[in-house]
Amino acid sequence: MISEKAKKRFIEIVGEENYRDSAAEKLVYSYDATPNYQAMPDAVMVPRNTKEVSQIVKLCNEFKIPIVPRGSGTNLCAGTCPTEGGIVLLFTRMNQMLEIDEENLTVTVQPGVVTLDMIQAVEAKGLFYPPDPSSMKISTIGGNINENSGGLRGLKYGVTRDYVLGLEAVLPNGDIIKTGGKLAKDVAGYDLTRLLVGSEGTLAVITEATMKLVPMPETKQTMLASYQDMEAAAKAVSTIISHMIIPATLEFLDQPTLEVVEDFAKIGLPTDVKAVLLIEQDGPLEVVVRDMKKMQEICLQSGAVSVDMAQSELEAEALRTARRSALSALARLKPTTILEDATVPRSEIATMVNAINEIGLKHGVKICTFGHAGDGNLHPTVPTDARNHEEMERVEAAFEDIFATAIELGGTITGEHGVGLMKAPYLEWKLGTEGIAVMKAIKQAIDPLNIMNPGKVFAKETRKRVVISK
Amino acid sequence: MISEKAKKRFIEIVGEENYRDSAAEKLVYSYDATPNYQAMPDAVMVPRNTKEVSQIVKLCNEFKIPIVPRGSGTNLCAGTCPTEGGIVLLFTRMNQMLEIDEENLTVTVQPGVVTLDMIQAVEAKGLFYPPDPSSMKISTIGGNINENSGGLRGLKYGVTRDYVLGLEAVLPNGDIIKTGGKLAKDVAGYDLTRLLVGSEGTLAVITEATMKLVPMPETKQTMLASYQDMEAAAKAVSTIISHMIIPATLEFLDQPTLEVVEDFAKIGLPTDVKAVLLIEQDGPLEVVVRDMKKMQEICLQSGAVSVDMAQSELEAEALRTARRSALSALARLKPTTILEDATVPRSEIATMVNAINEIGLKHGVKICTFGHAGDGNLHPTVPTDARNHEEMERVEAAFEDIFATAIELGGTITGEHGVGLMKAPYLEWKLGTEGIAVMKAIKQAIDPLNIMNPGKVFAKETRKRVVISK
Repeated sequence: MISEKAKKRFIEIVGEENYRDSAAEKLVYSYDATPNYQAMPDAVMVPRNTKEVSQIVKLCNEFKIPIVPRGSGTNLCAGTCPTEGGIVLLFTRMNQMLEIDEENLTVTVQPGVVTLDMIQAVEAKGLFYPPDPSSMKISTIGGNINENSGGLRGLKYGVTRDYVLGLEAVLPNGDIIKTGGKLAKDVAGYDLTRLLVGSEGTLAVITEATMKLVPMPETKQTMLASYQDMEAAAKAVSTIISHMIIPATLEFLDQPTLEVVEDFAKIGLPTDVKAVLLIEQDGPLEVVVRDMKKMQEICLQSGAVSVDMAQSELEAEALRTARRSALSALARLKPTTILEDATVPRSEIATMVNAINEIGLKHGVKICTFGHAGDGNLHPTVPTDARNHEEMERVEAAFEDIFATAIELGGTITGEHGVGLMKAPYLEWKLGTEGIAVMKAIKQAIDPLNIMNPGKVFAKETRKRVVISK
Repeated sequence: MISEKAKKRFIEIVGEENYRDSAAEKLVYSYDATPNYQAMPDAVMVPRNTKEVSQIVKLCNEFKIPIVPRGSGTNLCAGTCPTEGGIVLLFTRMNQMLEIDEENLTVTVQPGVVTLDMIQAVEAKGLFYPPDPSSMKISTIGGNINENSGGLRGLKYGVTRDYVLGLEAVLPNGDIIKTGGKLAKDVAGYDLTRLLVGSEGTLAVITEATMKLVPMPETKQTMLASYQDMEAAAKAVSTIISHMIIPATLEFLDQPTLEVVEDFAKIGLPTDVKAVLLIEQDGPLEVVVRDMKKMQEICLQSGAVSVDMAQSELEAEALRTARRSALSALARLKPTTILEDATVPRSEIATMVNAINEIGLKHGVKICTFGHAGDGNLHPTVPTDARNHEEMERVEAAFEDIFATAIELGGTITGEHGVGLMKAPYLEWKLGTEGIAVMKAIKQAIDPLNIMNPGKVFAKETRKRVVISK
């Protein structure tokens, strides 16, 4: 609840037009891309600069009003669902690309910049920003930083965290801090930059970011290896890497996923094979040619029935786009699509793929699996219907088994989607009570009144996915 | 002070032979590689496993006894000087390489493993661990992690932080936590792994680490570009990078440094030039040849009087070793050697080199400058004599100016050496009171009794380097 007094003061900060609390507006921001979670905010605010953010946060602290910073809401962990009401903070007026620095190879942006816009802007200057989450056409850099987003190029290039050099952020007390800078090296105190990356808006509001760029790779090649044996495909992943080749992309799609993606994208994907690997290498031409040839050999030796090289960049882009559309394609099957991202050491990919299939059979749940196999980061996905409570119970049980298996194999409950509300009940499986305790201590130290995206990361009690409404 | 009662309990944990409090033993661990700092510990302890570490820490918490975890004490920020007494914790009995995992490209070690031993062990398997601090022959991985050490290959490959995948650590309350794992991606909660990296032993005791490896580069070439104009040499650094070449090494040495290094190493370094750049590239042969040729051209165009390619790996290794010996060589000049590592965006390297020279003249202090120019990470070094208080005042004033200039240019007070005790008084210049406040809040939350390396990172009051003794 926001009192009339508080509302008046918020409006003094951002102006009438940037404080919105109509029923329609609140409804729009009551959910994000995560199925089955919805809760009404009390208001939506659109600050225009860091100073306004600081004033808003200070006021929220004074009135104990929750704040949920939100990019485009493409996260899949209910991380931006305002489950305890309060304010949803939008960055649509803080969406400027401030500087591309060609000498230091950095780009400085406001949080509301759309990821793909930034990627294209730096590419126009021969520079390269590798993290490419599937949602990059609409996701924002602020959202990417808060979730530490991954993407298809993570294996070779790392994730968002590896590209954040410096941040400006507003702490829950309204203090504005600057971390890092255009610096290759900086060890002045604790690594606040990386503490904020992936903190899901629970510690601070990010208001500016300086990101590292690298030179644009000279060339890129793409191929598709098809398998009639899922395990063989999964095994090829670790074989490639143990041959000292780190491809730019090494993606896995199983047959059920291939079928729906082909139906959606219609680009001639094989649907009569059990699995494919989408493999890309980039870099200097000689190296790319050599690596692709070697990987082709490894795939064939490991039982691929065919390995097809993309004949043009157009064809390659169609393959990548098809892979990126997997979630959208799967979402057409059933009213509810639940996609997870349990992650294992890459040597365990084959074991994990088999385990997922067995878990699906055990619980009578159809699981389509695709994902960043080279990172050990799979996306087992269940097309289901949230209204069917009996089936949802089985889906829930299947995912519990999947998380438990990932942990058992030395993995984690989330590789790139974040904990949010959805995976909070399972966090302890990965971290133990001691790990959770130290994270809670940090949260409490920085945000003692718990106004920053409350309810996220740390679970209250349940281990179930439940529909939350206010 | 450690009471007899506490001593008895410590001995119960580690045994008589691993609890040492003779005057000689305490003297040995009363200082580290940082000149001008000394303080006596109350005891030195040598735990044999994580459980013992946990019991020691718990007991220290109970009796409010400071703990200073120490690798080989090669740090240059007085980070392991036991300035508040207590226990110096050694890892000479926790020095096992536990596993090299060739499928996941990881190595798991205990903290006491010597950096170079680990590097050589993984290289024997065709794998590569890039961080190579100059002290790597004696430094330990535990020390490297606590200090987030850099090295000569930081420009292309990053620093220690970029290679830590997972940690086991003992918190001040004795809890044992495990962070991360053999995982390319993991966003399950706050990034404790990177919070601990570079935390200088002020938050936890690291008891095990899993480090990322990469494939060994196929080949490497080395060259030396000589300049009669220091500014031209410094400018060549940013020109190389803005030409989209990221060399493996890009080091700078000025004339005074060259003279003493040549006198020390006797390998035929030019001593009649104003500065040299030591440049290396590694990778596939075609790429290395192409990049080296391009960089040679850039150096000549930017005013190099000569560019000499190393004719053999022996010659290349001699150059690298000479560079690594810069501190040892400079240390022979005068009784006291003060080496700093103020760091700037690499576009500011030329400005910074000029500023350092002007500052030296202004204060009548001889400053030799060398360092990781490609990282913007310079090591202005002053050979002096701590007993000459008047000169020390001027040295102090010169370094204050250097730090202030680095900050003004968007840089930091320390790129790779850490804050420790020595740079604590300057930390606020980089972080502001707000930045310090949030770091202190984290420290207080995790280590409420302030037993973990107390007095480090956060300054008490002075801005001076002072001799501290108990």
